[in-house]
Amino acid sequence: MNWNERVAELREQVRQQRPLLHHITNFVVMNDTANVTLHIGGLPVMAHAREEVAEMVAAAGALVLNPGTLTPEWVESTLVAGKRANELGIPIVLDPVGAGATTLRTESNRRLLEELQIAVVRGNSGEIGALTGMGGVVKGVETVVEVDDPVEVAQALARQYGVTVAITGPRDTVTGGTRVFGVDNGHPMLKTITGTGCAATTMIAAFVAVERDYALATAAALACFGLAAEIAAQEARGPASFKIALFDAIYNLSRDQILAGAKVVEL
Amino acid sequence: MNWNERVAELREQVRQQRPLLHHITNFVVMNDTANVTLHIGGLPVMAHAREEVAEMVAAAGALVLNPGTLTPEWVESTLVAGKRANELGIPIVLDPVGAGATTLRTESNRRLLEELQIAVVRGNSGEIGALTGMGGVVKGVETVVEVDDPVEVAQALARQYGVTVAITGPRDTVTGGTRVFGVDNGHPMLKTITGTGCAATTMIAAFVAVERDYALATAAALACFGLAAEIAAQEARGPASFKIALFDAIYNLSRDQILAGAKVVEL
Amino acid sequence: MNWNERVAELREQVRQQRPLLHHITNFVVMNDTANVTLHIGGLPVMAHAREEVAEMVAAAGALVLNPGTLTPEWVESTLVAGKRANELGIPIVLDPVGAGATTLRTESNRRLLEELQIAVVRGNSGEIGALTGMGGVVKGVETVVEVDDPVEVAQALARQYGVTVAITGPRDTVTGGTRVFGVDNGHPMLKTITGTGCAATTMIAAFVAVERDYALATAAALACFGLAAEIAAQEARGPASFKIALFDAIYNLSRDQILAGAKVVEL
Repeated sequence: MNWNERVAELREQVRQQRPLLHHITNFVVMNDTANVTLHIGGLPVMAHAREEVAEMVAAAGALVLNPGTLTPEWVESTLVAGKRANELGIPIVLDPVGAGATTLRTESNRRLLEELQIAVVRGNSGEIGALTGMGGVVKGVETVVEVDDPVEVAQALARQYGVTVAITGPRDTVTGGTRVFGVDNGHPMLKTITGTGCAATTMIAAFVAVERDYALATAAALACFGLAAEIAAQEARGPASFKIALFDAIYNLSRDQILAGAKVVEL
Repeated sequence: MNWNERVAELREQVRQQRPLLHHITNFVVMNDTANVTLHIGGLPVMAHAREEVAEMVAAAGALVLNPGTLTPEWVESTLVAGKRANELGIPIVLDPVGAGATTLRTESNRRLLEELQIAVVRGNSGEIGALTGMGGVVKGVETVVEVDDPVEVAQALARQYGVTVAITGPRDTVTGGTRVFGVDNGHPMLKTITGTGCAATTMIAAFVAVERDYALATAAALACFGLAAEIAAQEARGPASFKIALFDAIYNLSRDQILAGAKVVEL
Repeated sequence: MNWNERVAELREQVRQQRPLLHHITNFVVMNDTANVTLHIGGLPVMAHAREEVAEMVAAAGALVLNPGTLTPEWVESTLVAGKRANELGIPIVLDPVGAGATTLRTESNRRLLEELQIAVVRGNSGEIGALTGMGGVVKGVETVVEVDDPVEVAQALARQYGVTVAITGPRDTVTGGTRVFGVDNGHPMLKTITGTGCAATTMIAAFVAVERDYALATAAALACFGLAAEIAAQEARGPASFKIALFDAIYNLSRDQILAGAKVVEL
């Protein structure tokens, strides 16, 4: 089956519906992910005070939890917001930044998976490996040793917590436990700038806000993100000009570009 | 009257005087507003620790309060800094980010207006509407329903607190309560990137640091900011390249460009 | 002696070894310094929670402490991380942002110098002057009055704490107390954007992670950074396009460019 027509439709639905994406996220990428939210067609808000997150999330189309610069107080706020999101049926997307690098990161991400009903978890190979205990090594926030079999690892986490899991890399793997999508869009320049994983997570949140088949929405978002990277790399002179071109390409991404270039396969 | 000569003079005075702009601001735009401060000709400092804000603000030409990612502790620091600024006669510019979106945001901004003597408040239509109770709807940090009459709403807030108010939009409205300026510079691309309102607020702070006619200074700053956006849009290929061009244009903005392009009217 | 061969070798060693640079840094430049870390060839991680910094730093090639938006809790975390780094022999690079501007900043930086064994301190003239009590004036985070003799001031701080000191400016001065390097690379456009000092500090951390002659490593890093700025200025249309070109140039900086353009002298 050719999924590109569905990918293009979902990208257009984001533009039409303008979902509010409530981020409780890290300080490194706040500006970038707010911009990506606008470029793909949503409305961003970054709000982490325990006193307001339950009220803020009630207006959101999706909640993004990204513990890249976490503290214990930050984790408490995510639990408050996440429980309210669960009550209201608002999907939560978790980016377990640095899981495996420290005990605080590994355990905080597991706690979020246990205490909240998460819709989608997107991480790199080592991060998802650390959450499952199935291998991979994380140094700081990057995978330095990959897991052996990303499909198996993603399925294990998906089944354990009833979530959709995306492991991003040269081939992105997406699964809700049984059906598996592969996404072959992307470009090596994505590794030369910070926050591209976080930006991909924000794209996923925009798509799950408009489509409740989370595995499809996630694969579609990753195809759009990777395709924008391919387009950007054609004119980049280095990582900073690549980032500018990437963000421009996300904004400009057209139906024709998606139909011609998205690479989503069902495995 | 043609105000452009005065706008050009004020822009040059910022370059000559290099005012320090002390920001107690949100984590999303810190980098951007520090850069805008430098580009327009000032010196930026971002400092929010309760232990140092009173000492820091004493060296400033203006204090910027921007509660975009507020917490109760953050509000306490702004009150400490603001009270010291009031003692010293240093103007305070408030950007009530997300007022109307949550109770914490609406009430914290009202508290700042009540406990401090603010010089200028700049917000979008919904934020200023929320502070006056005169309509408008805010979702996250964006207006999704405009107020009916921005002049009336701005004047109401101006009179209630004795402040200069700017409501930014396709036409910017600026008033200290009686006299009203309209500014017709700007470009729709400003809506495609995050933090442009915050950047406009920083521009206002630079101008009120050198000119005590706050309504004129505010209108001049908004004309320069909007004109830079018009110049930038001519070469932008998308929102990220627009942002680069916007920041370059703020830095390069010349007397001749202002005389030819600023659009300030007294209503 | 011509040092350029050594500078080029060290830049290549960073690319080969990919050191993890653990930053406990300010909110203004987190994104920029994470990117600079990747562009020069390292792996960045930003982590400041007291609960994880000791574990995180154990995997690092260097620890960057940058108190640009410090709070007392932040200082506590840096001490925890710094003590663990000292136990493990991991070099610490300190950027005393705004020392001299407030008592909190001056005293917190002195405390770090007293309680930790710092490898390298990099600051502007006024910041290093404030730490030594030998003159210079800081407004916000910028020097507005230079110290009289940077070599003398740098040597004084170096001897007092047994550290390598870099005072950056039109000529960078680097000394471990006796031997003194001057670096004449750089460009005035560096003053038009925020965080260039912080980015230079991150470059230093990448080089000290691979070379234990800290004065040489520091001079080499500053030569590479300044040379990238010279290359970038050739195509910049303003400060924002300069920043993009600077980051691209750091990533692309080649052996041939370094051999032809680095300007390191031993005084």
